[in-house]
Amino acid sequence: MKSDELFALLRRRGFLWPTAEIYGGAQGLYDYGPLGAALKRRIEEAWTAWFVGLSHDYYLIDPAEILPEAVVRASGHLENFTDPEVTCDSCHNAFRADTVLEKVRPEGVDGLGPNEIGELVRANHVKCPSCGSTNLSVPQPFNLMFGLDFGVTGRERVYLRPETAQSSYLSFARMWDVGRRALPLGIAVVGKAYRNEIAPRQVLFRMRSFTQAELQIFFDPTSFPVPFDRTKEEVLPVVRAAKRLAGSEEIEHVPAHDLVASGGLPEFYVHHLVHTFRFYRDVLAIPADRVRLLEKSDQERAFYNRIQFDVEVHLESLGGFKEIGALHYRGDYDLGRHGQGSGKDLAVTVTGGRSVLPHVLELTFGPDRSLWAVADTHLGKDGDRTLFRLPPYLAPVPVGVFPLIAKEHAAFALRLSDELATAGVPNQYDDAGTIGKRYARMDEAGTPFCVTVDGETVAEGPNQGTVTLRLRDSKAQERVPAAELAGRILPKLRPPRPPRA
Amino acid sequence: MKSDELFALLRRRGFLWPTAEIYGGAQGLYDYGPLGAALKRRIEEAWTAWFVGLSHDYYLIDPAEILPEAVVRASGHLENFTDPEVTCDSCHNAFRADTVLEKVRPEGVDGLGPNEIGELVRANHVKCPSCGSTNLSVPQPFNLMFGLDFGVTGRERVYLRPETAQSSYLSFARMWDVGRRALPLGIAVVGKAYRNEIAPRQVLFRMRSFTQAELQIFFDPTSFPVPFDRTKEEVLPVVRAAKRLAGSEEIEHVPAHDLVASGGLPEFYVHHLVHTFRFYRDVLAIPADRVRLLEKSDQERAFYNRIQFDVEVHLESLGGFKEIGALHYRGDYDLGRHGQGSGKDLAVTVTGGRSVLPHVLELTFGPDRSLWAVADTHLGKDGDRTLFRLPPYLAPVPVGVFPLIAKEHAAFALRLSDELATAGVPNQYDDAGTIGKRYARMDEAGTPFCVTVDGETVAEGPNQGTVTLRLRDSKAQERVPAAELAGRILPKLRPPRPPRA
Repeated sequence: MKSDELFALLRRRGFLWPTAEIYGGAQGLYDYGPLGAALKRRIEEAWTAWFVGLSHDYYLIDPAEILPEAVVRASGHLENFTDPEVTCDSCHNAFRADTVLEKVRPEGVDGLGPNEIGELVRANHVKCPSCGSTNLSVPQPFNLMFGLDFGVTGRERVYLRPETAQSSYLSFARMWDVGRRALPLGIAVVGKAYRNEIAPRQVLFRMRSFTQAELQIFFDPTSFPVPFDRTKEEVLPVVRAAKRLAGSEEIEHVPAHDLVASGGLPEFYVHHLVHTFRFYRDVLAIPADRVRLLEKSDQERAFYNRIQFDVEVHLESLGGFKEIGALHYRGDYDLGRHGQGSGKDLAVTVTGGRSVLPHVLELTFGPDRSLWAVADTHLGKDGDRTLFRLPPYLAPVPVGVFPLIAKEHAAFALRLSDELATAGVPNQYDDAGTIGKRYARMDEAGTPFCVTVDGETVAEGPNQGTVTLRLRDSKAQERVPAAELAGRILPKLRPPRPPRA
Repeated sequence: MKSDELFALLRRRGFLWPTAEIYGGAQGLYDYGPLGAALKRRIEEAWTAWFVGLSHDYYLIDPAEILPEAVVRASGHLENFTDPEVTCDSCHNAFRADTVLEKVRPEGVDGLGPNEIGELVRANHVKCPSCGSTNLSVPQPFNLMFGLDFGVTGRERVYLRPETAQSSYLSFARMWDVGRRALPLGIAVVGKAYRNEIAPRQVLFRMRSFTQAELQIFFDPTSFPVPFDRTKEEVLPVVRAAKRLAGSEEIEHVPAHDLVASGGLPEFYVHHLVHTFRFYRDVLAIPADRVRLLEKSDQERAFYNRIQFDVEVHLESLGGFKEIGALHYRGDYDLGRHGQGSGKDLAVTVTGGRSVLPHVLELTFGPDRSLWAVADTHLGKDGDRTLFRLPPYLAPVPVGVFPLIAKEHAAFALRLSDELATAGVPNQYDDAGTIGKRYARMDEAGTPFCVTVDGETVAEGPNQGTVTLRLRDSKAQERVPAAELAGRILPKLRPPRPPRA
């Protein structure tokens, strides 16, 4: 599906819609409706089960989204978290430089200075996208953070966090104290981040308020032992930076152990790259041939990132590979900066009495983008049907419960719906329209199991107490005792976890 | 426990700490650590199961926290969401008028105008709490919303929502379209709200970034049928507004049906008041004698609230009854205002062809405050032990898994921890220190079940494969097959739901 078509379908089914829609919406803001909120929650829970589940010393925390100015000064965001912005001297509208230059420089403007961008605008006689004049200004850096006046004096300035990672760095000292005081220590946050994007677009891909799921692993740079035996045989679809610089974007399929042995990457990094790849393939069920791990070059990555692979998924709706996650080896930049900024030494003493300023491996992930990617991948036509082929543990509503005839079967069906909910099986009761229409509604919602209560269920006889269980993907139907439903379905609702022991 | 002592304990155990603690914190902002994040999440899930579980037509959505200016203009927040603020002309610090006047007017300043407040300050020679001078200004209204510059032009103004309710009102039209198109329709949000409180205090009770769980029930004012049979016999601890105005704050214990028959309250309102009371008593397990339902008078409630009872819980740490929830009958104020503001008629056509502008019953709830209330109520000393007597479904970590001797029993214990997690039982593996110390750590964390793997578990014999299950509250121990643990514990981890069918 094209982006517009996919969005229209998601909106019609109440997955999501523009914020303050009745007021005409707000650029870069979306509300999740019942199905979207549940799907996003399940994606977040699957992420947490998978990545926080990697170690007994990885923890999920929930910090505030507001950061004092001293924090974003130390992190560098106050100075550097900018996009080049071009304004039109005729109509006074403002644009991202890379958007204005899209046609003449499709590879973007990363690494170019304001003067170089200005020269490109002039040399190519680039016109204002709004009024068509050529009076575009020399680019200015535009800070993407939202600032707030905090307190009553007007003297205190705070910021909505531009990334959840900062909250984890700020919490490291406290987490060290309350935990086992050992490395590696993982601190995960699933929460909001905010960016005043110059040009929000592509629905969930460039939002101004969005969710991040990030795991920061703090480790001793002299030793980050990982059970590489469990991952080294995996073959990864990589695009190496050196090949890209030489002009090739072709995916190579390389065994993990080769990336270490001859690929120049550390074992701990490749181990987590495998886990990340497996999450997209085995948990979100994105077909492996739609995923690539794209290494960023020195010029492309932030200076503090020593190694960076972006996880990109090929999306039909957006016409190509799009980033939905990444793996950053950030060195000791973060704790070093916040140590300086706060005046508190963030080095810790490890076994043997050595003092270590931990390095950070960051696994970063976009639940909103992933929701879109999952919809792009799994939601589509199958003949006459519109079908959302979600794995059961991602389905917003795993079970639909229908009385065949509302008047006769509602009492049993309502009780069953209630019993399933009490047993931990979320479900939707629906008595409106034909069974076929009800199946169709649940197919679009991604519901893998539909249950129909009929005359046989409530009448005395061999089928008393049984219901029809219908499977979404195969349309297969089966007669099942209602009392056995929860036991059959519950195990399928737990997201996969990586084996630890 | 006193507030300071309770906070110190919660901080030491990593439930929560001030945001950006290494920078000295930020007023009114707190981060939840691993135990606090999990406890808060479970409180939110219990709330959702209970209240969204009230009807098949109540839904949870997840809208953005940022609202365009037109929205808060229509809702009245731009004009009226203010606290009177007094500034000191000597030291230029600012204070909430009710704080400054606390000693001379303990009942607060609700309903007083700026001139009346100014007169009280002058007449009582009130001194600046900061510098001691008597140069306090005439009070000015201070808007508590955080405003943001949105987009690149600097011309667009948006606001962090001051309450989640607005997001539900904005979504009503879309939810009507995607749903059954029938009333009552419930729209719940569990999410952040933001208020630039003049004087943040009492830890989680007046924060600048906090979570609200709110259910807005849209109904036809001519008919809101409820199954009152299920609730009418409940005896509620109420303090009626009329009695309060007459000088009595005494709790009366009144059967729900009496509140309707002779108390002048509508059935639908009392029905939901009972469900709300039961939530605090039966789900959060707050002793009934610590809860009161305090009716607000005409002078105290917002003008659009026709009926308001606050749910207050007596907290030792804060020295009295504190509001942690409320039930507002808001009439058609909200949809009326947003209909005008947006230019979209929000009336709907109900069965029979009548056009109805739905009324709103709002159930509002503070997860942060409730977390504090639960800690105040359930966390305390029992002889030498510090014990957090949480119901199992609220416990951040329901199960602790210990090897008696790490070297000998770790392999089995790690595998068990992993199997429990896979079966949906969150647990913490701990091999540090004596078993007694490990029990003590889990007692403080509120963990109801601890499991120890020992020599008998791993040796051939009658107890092979069994572990010691130790219960938090009774300290009772029992030998249990490890394979049976998940089945025994899982049902206890589901929060109670109200019966529907």
